[in-house]
This record gives sequence, structure tokens and C-alpha cells, in this order.
Amino acid sequence: MSAIHITSRDNALLKELRRLSQDGTAYRKRGQVWLEGDHLCRAALARGVQPAIAVFSESFWPLAPVQWTQVAIKTIVIADVLLSGISALESPARMAFVIDLPATPALVPDAASVILDRVQDAGNVGSILRSAAAFGFGQIIALKGTAALWSPKVLRAGMGAHFALRLVEGVEPDALDALTVPVVVTSSHTGSALQEQKLPMPCAWALGHEGQGVGAALMARASLSVRIEQPGGEESLNVAAAAAICLHASAVAAASGQPHAAPQL
Amino acid sequence: MSAIHITSRDNALLKELRRLSQDGTAYRKRGQVWLEGDHLCRAALARGVQPAIAVFSESFWPLAPVQWTQVAIKTIVIADVLLSGISALESPARMAFVIDLPATPALVPDAASVILDRVQDAGNVGSILRSAAAFGFGQIIALKGTAALWSPKVLRAGMGAHFALRLVEGVEPDALDALTVPVVVTSSHTGSALQEQKLPMPCAWALGHEGQGVGAALMARASLSVRIEQPGGEESLNVAAAAAICLHASAVAAASGQPHAAPQL
Repeated sequence: MSAIHITSRDNALLKELRRLSQDGTAYRKRGQVWLEGDHLCRAALARGVQPAIAVFSESFWPLAPVQWTQVAIKTIVIADVLLSGISALESPARMAFVIDLPATPALVPDAASVILDRVQDAGNVGSILRSAAAFGFGQIIALKGTAALWSPKVLRAGMGAHFALRLVEGVEPDALDALTVPVVVTSSHTGSALQEQKLPMPCAWALGHEGQGVGAALMARASLSVRIEQPGGEESLNVAAAAAICLHASAVAAASGQPHAAPQL
Repeated sequence: MSAIHITSRDNALLKELRRLSQDGTAYRKRGQVWLEGDHLCRAALARGVQPAIAVFSESFWPLAPVQWTQVAIKTIVIADVLLSGISALESPARMAFVIDLPATPALVPDAASVILDRVQDAGNVGSILRSAAAFGFGQIIALKGTAALWSPKVLRAGMGAHFALRLVEGVEPDALDALTVPVVVTSSHTGSALQEQKLPMPCAWALGHEGQGVGAALMARASLSVRIEQPGGEESLNVAAAAAICLHASAVAAASGQPHAAPQL
């Protein structure tokens, strides 16, 4: 395969790439996703994704490994300055892929899951996806109002975790009624301490909006509420920090070989 | 006290404020810190900080609580659009304080601490500060190369934790020799699993650069290396997520009433 060299800043494809890179929700309309940098591209390839487009900077193109230059349906090479113009990063990468947005999978009722209830910050969402993948929570259920999962910022913070997870986006709260795993929430005021609690496995951990927390309806639906004790006395943890603590605790409980009985739903 | 109304975009003080707000390291040269938004300002006041300057938007000024309008040495009111121009936030706040940069405290050798070894991302550093404050790690030791602790971005992510912590910045690695608490590190490859490990309390958790981890010299200095098991098989956790898990584990160990013997240094 050979590459197409694009030199005009006004090229229609470059405009399209800029939109995908800089507008966090453009992928929904376009059906394509911008993956910038070696790490994300490698993660996609490792999961068998075939890129629709591979983009290389002029300076990197002669150095690019052959398995990258021949993997995409279309390969383009552009001046470094043009690639910088497309990138939304302070330090733009030297290559990127565009992949087709994976079809949204159906919700699996009995899968170990993380429910994102309007979590706003892309860095938080990406960090939670990494923790979920690390601790064996394979399904992410993003309720409406959560940061767009396939946005470049979430992808970047997710460091490739997207490709190891079942990502169910744009979910209405009512759809959670289908879940057969118990929903677990954290609360700073009620419930027993996390380390004293028998955690059901599999379960669905619900994580909420940075300011408002988990919504009342989802709180009411939870089978279990646990407290993360904060002896330092400060107000609250970052939501991704709380997620890491909870998901790790579940993984430790599961690995202890003593699966706990799930509470009654 | 009365307020000074500033209407010119070219006012020297406004230019100064813009620098403090938009340049993450400007505070080092200027000796003053930009605190934007109710939450951070409230956290500073709660710890007895007297602001040097209080800044209000024209529209918020008539609604501002009297204890805020009279607390600063100097109070200024500016057009909303000017305050938006100073702010680096997508949703600019309606008020801000400027405070004098606290003098860097001396390192306390036996305090429960978190060592930041060139952690780059402001959101990660802020999240780690919140977790440290929540779990009783009162001293932060930021080695040279770590994101500037009093930058607006770290302050924002820290959500007020700065004012509950002893923040020792710009520390040379050699200065860690003064520590009498054991240094604990995480490793994905060596050491026993976190939950199987007796954690020394107090201790100093070392957290490293997002890409490179903890440097070799600090690794070699550590008394204990623990693993966070990741049964999901994904590569690694976000550093702030790992920090939350470790600091929480220490707090739980300390609260269990069975202080473990510190390993020999």
C-alpha cells in the first residue's frame, strides 16, 4: 500500500480530522474515532481493530514501523505543522489512527460492571476505565449526561482500556432495571466501612457526578451502600480515586476465594 | 471597607491577575496565588488565610456575602467579561481571591508523607493531595520536576486539600535522606500484594512520573515494595488511582488498632 501526501491545510479530510480531534462528541455524528499517539494506536491494533485511516507526520513517516504503515485502509502523510494543527494536545503526537466507532453493545445483565452516573470530567472517566479494566470489571454503563466515552480526552486518559471493555453509552436510568447484579454505591454518611463489608461479586459499582454524586433514583436502587472512611477529615475524594479504592476492594474480595453471597435485590 | 471598580482591560493589576491565573508557575516569581471560585476561597478562609485581594464580578458583587466582601486587604469589582478574560476556566467563576504564597515549610522527618517524584499531570497531583488529606497523610514532599503545587490547575483539582496539608515543594532527592519514616513504593512486578502486606505507619508513600514511575534512586531507597494486583490484566493504573488505593490501605491498617512494626531502614 502507498500513502497519500496531503499538503493543503484546506483539504476536506484534514478539516474532518480536526473536528474529530478537537470536538469531544464529533464521533457520535461522524461514526469515527480519533486515536492519537503510539500507545492508543498500539492498544487498538492489539485488539484486532483495523484502522480506517492512518495519519503520519512527514518527519515520522520514514521511521514508521512497516506494520503500521500498511495496516489502514487509507494511509496519509502530512506536514508536521498540519498534524500539530489537527491535534488538540500540547505535545502533538507524530501519528494517529481513525477507526470506525464500534457499535454500542447490548447491556449484559449479569456482568461485573461500573455505572457512570453523569461523571463529567474526561480525566476522571478515563482513569475509571483503566481501573475497571485492571480489576476485572468488564462492562461500563454510561448513563446519559456522562462525558462522551470515545472523546479524544477520555481515550487519552483511558490509555487503551477502551479496547478491553464493553462500553455501553447513552443509557437511560430505567435500563438499569435489567441488571441482575447488585448495585453498590459509596456514601460518606451511611453504610458500613468498605473494609468491614462483604462485597458481592459480581456487582455493579455506581459512581456519580463530581459535584452531586450518584442521583437519588440510582441511590434508591442500590442493594448496598458502603463508606470509605476518611480519618484525615477532609470532605471527599475525587470520584476516580474513590472508584479505584472500591474496584480494588472488590477484586481482592473475589481473589480471596471466598465469594460472598449477594444481598437480596 | 469599600471596593475598587476597575473598568479598563489594560489595568496593570488585571494583567497581573491574568498571569497568576493562566501561567501555572507564575506564583513562584510573584509570591502570590490565584484561588478561583467559592469552594477554594471558602477552604482558604476556613484555615484562617487572609486574602490579599478579593475579586468579584459586577453581577455577583451585589449578591456576595458580607463576610467575603470585607475580608481582603484589597477588594476589586470588575465587569463579568473582564473576569472571564482573566480566568483560564471554561466556566469562569464569579469571584476569586489572591493570597500570599505560604512560606515553604521545613520537611518533618517522621510525618506520614506522600512523596511526588516528578508527577506531571495537574489533575493527578490535585487528586493525590485530596486523597492524602482524606487518609491522614499530612505532608506532601514534591521532588523537583513535579507539577507546581500551587498552580491554578492543581489547586482546582485539590478542592481545598492544599490548606490541610504541609506542602514541601522543590525538594532535591538527597533531602529525602532526612526522613525517618520508611519509604514505600508500588511495583507491578515485585513485592507482595498490598492486601497481604503489613504496612508500616507512619510511612512515606512514593508516587512516580506517569510514564516512567518512581526513579531508580528512590526505588533503591524504599524499605518496602508492594504490588497492586490487577486481575483484569490491563497494563497499569493511573498514578492517582494507585495512590488512592495505597493511602486508603494505610489508613485502614492504622485504624485497625494494630500498628505494624516499621521495617528496618
